[in-house]
Amino acid sequence: MQKLALLGFGTVGQGLAEILLQKKDALKAETGWEGKVVAISDMIKGSIYDPEGIDIEKALAIVKKTGTLDDYPESEGLIRDLDSFETIEQTNADTIVEVTFTDVKTGQPAIDHCKTAFAAGKHVVMSNKGPVALAYKELSQLANQHGVRWGFEGTVMSGTPALRMPLTALAGNDINEISGILNGTTNYMLLRMEEGLSYEEALTEAQNKGFAEADPTSDVEGYDARYKIVILANTVMNTTLKVDDVACDGITQLTPYDIKKAKAQGKRWKLIARVRKEHGVVKASVQPEMMDETHPLAQVQGVINAVSFECDLAGTITLSGPGAGRTETGYSLLIDLLNIYRNHL
Amino acid sequence: MQKLALLGFGTVGQGLAEILLQKKDALKAETGWEGKVVAISDMIKGSIYDPEGIDIEKALAIVKKTGTLDDYPESEGLIRDLDSFETIEQTNADTIVEVTFTDVKTGQPAIDHCKTAFAAGKHVVMSNKGPVALAYKELSQLANQHGVRWGFEGTVMSGTPALRMPLTALAGNDINEISGILNGTTNYMLLRMEEGLSYEEALTEAQNKGFAEADPTSDVEGYDARYKIVILANTVMNTTLKVDDVACDGITQLTPYDIKKAKAQGKRWKLIARVRKEHGVVKASVQPEMMDETHPLAQVQGVINAVSFECDLAGTITLSGPGAGRTETGYSLLIDLLNIYRNHL
Repeated sequence: MQKLALLGFGTVGQGLAEILLQKKDALKAETGWEGKVVAISDMIKGSIYDPEGIDIEKALAIVKKTGTLDDYPESEGLIRDLDSFETIEQTNADTIVEVTFTDVKTGQPAIDHCKTAFAAGKHVVMSNKGPVALAYKELSQLANQHGVRWGFEGTVMSGTPALRMPLTALAGNDINEISGILNGTTNYMLLRMEEGLSYEEALTEAQNKGFAEADPTSDVEGYDARYKIVILANTVMNTTLKVDDVACDGITQLTPYDIKKAKAQGKRWKLIARVRKEHGVVKASVQPEMMDETHPLAQVQGVINAVSFECDLAGTITLSGPGAGRTETGYSLLIDLLNIYRNHL
Repeated sequence: MQKLALLGFGTVGQGLAEILLQKKDALKAETGWEGKVVAISDMIKGSIYDPEGIDIEKALAIVKKTGTLDDYPESEGLIRDLDSFETIEQTNADTIVEVTFTDVKTGQPAIDHCKTAFAAGKHVVMSNKGPVALAYKELSQLANQHGVRWGFEGTVMSGTPALRMPLTALAGNDINEISGILNGTTNYMLLRMEEGLSYEEALTEAQNKGFAEADPTSDVEGYDARYKIVILANTVMNTTLKVDDVACDGITQLTPYDIKKAKAQGKRWKLIARVRKEHGVVKASVQPEMMDETHPLAQVQGVINAVSFECDLAGTITLSGPGAGRTETGYSLLIDLLNIYRNHL
């Protein structure tokens, strides 16, 4: 029985909790895995810890109704108000689910949460990109030293296994290039611009549909995709790429004229994140590329993400699926938990 | 050190041998895995066994030059002429690589090779479809009973991980539907028919390019895809589907008129293998389907294969890559070997 502490109880934390609630019996029957949430600690919603296990159904219902965990029912043994670090160190959780609101530029507080958890001999699973893009080497060494696991499948393509697929199923290949559409927002906007919208109209529509945030900088300037290609390169191709090493150009300069011109040539603009190893030199970029319409990545529609791995033995293998979503990202945490339990990658 | 016996030394067996030769040091450095071929037994090319290990480079060169292993150099301890069953039972191999010429209708002799190997406590990896499509339940139970592993990644999409990806990276999902383009020959022919060729012209061209065999029945009637969807259903969706349960219709009835009619509607014919679970009932088919041009499977070009998994948590996830090839299928055996060594799925 894996004992989980959730740091953060926003969309993703609740998404995982809902899955655990709905699929408890099926997961046990199919995989042997059993998980119990013993603690939830959220900066805004409050913090509860019960060494015997939290009633997830009640916690979800109360947060939905009141926005906080304050009205979670009292019981013998219930402890309130542990902060995130106390929750890591002082609870009986063996695995930390790190889904806090984290500053993507510094990776904090998630990086410190990882360090504290590893030092305490606890596994971590997370969907925050920052720590993996900024501190992969240091944190993975630390996890190894302490004999614990660190799962972060959801950081690249949510529940679509952009990391686990190559690591488990393409091992032994030299992967010389990885290229992908790793940002759904910009892919959606480019599609709508092809259909005649201006950049501004496409952005407003994406914001109205909830695909783009009020401040869309991270998506449209390519920063989000840049983090993801760094994670792919360092974990799958074993490079030591840093975020600043990646030339980065977003879609803000693309004009309706560029789009039309591409179309007239049977081509299509896509925001492509790419990393390539050539004679031991690693080159990475995020930029709009004009691709032939028949190219597999040119055919990726809407908010779907896709990634291609160029393998010396298995050939070019492409994986596509949703790159975001409450349940999808909740699932990415579950598959990390399951594979810690099975002792698989 | 895994000790391998190759049953069969045709295209796929030689493909694996070449990989082992070229990537020996890299595989050891990257994964810790070491494999040594101790025996090769081929119906036509002859049979050699050396408990200390065969010189793969010499074996490949001699077969290339003479077509047989007869001139493989004598050495102390070298034993010739063991048949396949003797090679399984009497050599020091711990793992059998089953790549014999096997009758796809009966699955023999591969099925008996598996049974003999499992009873002798030896792992089996293979790329022959027949045994998995016809006898999955019996053989997997037998392997379990004897505490050995049975790998067959290459039976569905060659080195593209159509089986391992869902099993390792999508566990915990209810997969309600699997659909795919699992036959490259017919996919190529349909593309050429869209480009104006008749069925007969497209077939002749595919034969000339080596995509289709002299007797193309298995491809064009859908039988090849039918085996593959049965394997996917039984291993990934845990069904007990039999080959005869799958309604099967090939591409032989498609006319240039059908193709043109689809094109006029923005659609495209694809030979789709599909299995679906609905209220506990499993329905499977192989048939040409007229798909919208924007559907992910409609965009799969040429001899590439693709498969989509409809997951309740992770969403619809699509994997595409080469579905055949000497190195690709050789690699499918290697990834099975590596994951036996790592004790992973």
